[in-house]
Amino acid sequence: MHTSTEQLFTQAHTAGAFVDTPVDDDTLRTLYDLLKWGPTSSNCCPARFVFVRTPAQRERLVDCVSPGNVAKVRSAPVTVVIGMDMAFYEQLPRLYPQADARSWFAGKPEVIAREALRSSSLQAGYLILAARALGLDCGPMGGIDAAKMDAAFFAGTTVKSHMICSLGHADRAKQRPRNPRLTFDEACRLL
Amino acid sequence: MHTSTEQLFTQAHTAGAFVDTPVDDDTLRTLYDLLKWGPTSSNCCPARFVFVRTPAQRERLVDCVSPGNVAKVRSAPVTVVIGMDMAFYEQLPRLYPQADARSWFAGKPEVIAREALRSSSLQAGYLILAARALGLDCGPMGGIDAAKMDAAFFAGTTVKSHMICSLGHADRAKQRPRNPRLTFDEACRLL
Repeated sequence: MHTSTEQLFTQAHTAGAFVDTPVDDDTLRTLYDLLKWGPTSSNCCPARFVFVRTPAQRERLVDCVSPGNVAKVRSAPVTVVIGMDMAFYEQLPRLYPQADARSWFAGKPEVIAREALRSSSLQAGYLILAARALGLDCGPMGGIDAAKMDAAFFAGTTVKSHMICSLGHADRAKQRPRNPRLTFDEACRLL
Repeated sequence: MHTSTEQLFTQAHTAGAFVDTPVDDDTLRTLYDLLKWGPTSSNCCPARFVFVRTPAQRERLVDCVSPGNVAKVRSAPVTVVIGMDMAFYEQLPRLYPQADARSWFAGKPEVIAREALRSSSLQAGYLILAARALGLDCGPMGGIDAAKMDAAFFAGTTVKSHMICSLGHADRAKQRPRNPRLTFDEACRLL
């Protein structure tokens, strides 16, 4: 499927308000079937995705986000809760069969926590760009009550809430100007 | 610039060996000018990038990576060291002028460490996909001696080493088959 660096990067824009156009389930399945191919450390794939798209579930979600994010979540046809499976290493015998990668993590809570955060963040980046490639606008948000969200969406599992991202079609009339970025010379060196 | 979801996701492949084709500095500048637009939490942009492309600097880098990554780094025309500026919040008055975002981090080392890791990982994901959009192959690697790399490349700064990523054109003859991914039903729920 064709896309462009304009669509992905230079003309993309974080969305805080969405129009009513729905996002169908097939699009969400296609989204996962793209993002899943992005590389993670030892192919550990710790991210788990809960796509919230019914009004009743959306209200449960609203109850778990920071006050500043309530209107954004209410406005979006879909918001995905991105979690991290803290038992991700149990999948490694299948996901990374070329080494005993499970032993790099099992029983090491600090290594697990760091890798879960790192690789699920990589996967969140893939999700954002894959969604843009599919013509969707994204509103990623870190402001959540993680304990409340864990209880609401991941009770009885080894998954912990990480962040959320609204998906849909932005209301361009309500778009804010983009904030600046660091210059090449501020952020990079050539050696 | 045109690209496709095949180039970014479904036909992309982590590279462990590269052919001799060089990567010029203009391409690296274009790479940053794409990836910098990817969203981070409060636009905090913590990632710093050191593009290592001369033989002497490459040998300094080789000295800081895990034994399993030495040949990969030696094979690549460029390897980028991705660091996290632990003083990223000092840039927030400029990068996120709409709130006193600096105060959300200053004096809170655990919040700083978590956000530096999270947002620099998002930026690493943007780097990988932007490089693929530019026709480059990527070899991201977590296996580094972070303390040694800090001393070699970030001495006297507030930047800490996070991961590295080789960039160039893959030697397809040496490509391994891709590992499997979790299915939609294993990784996702629709609510």
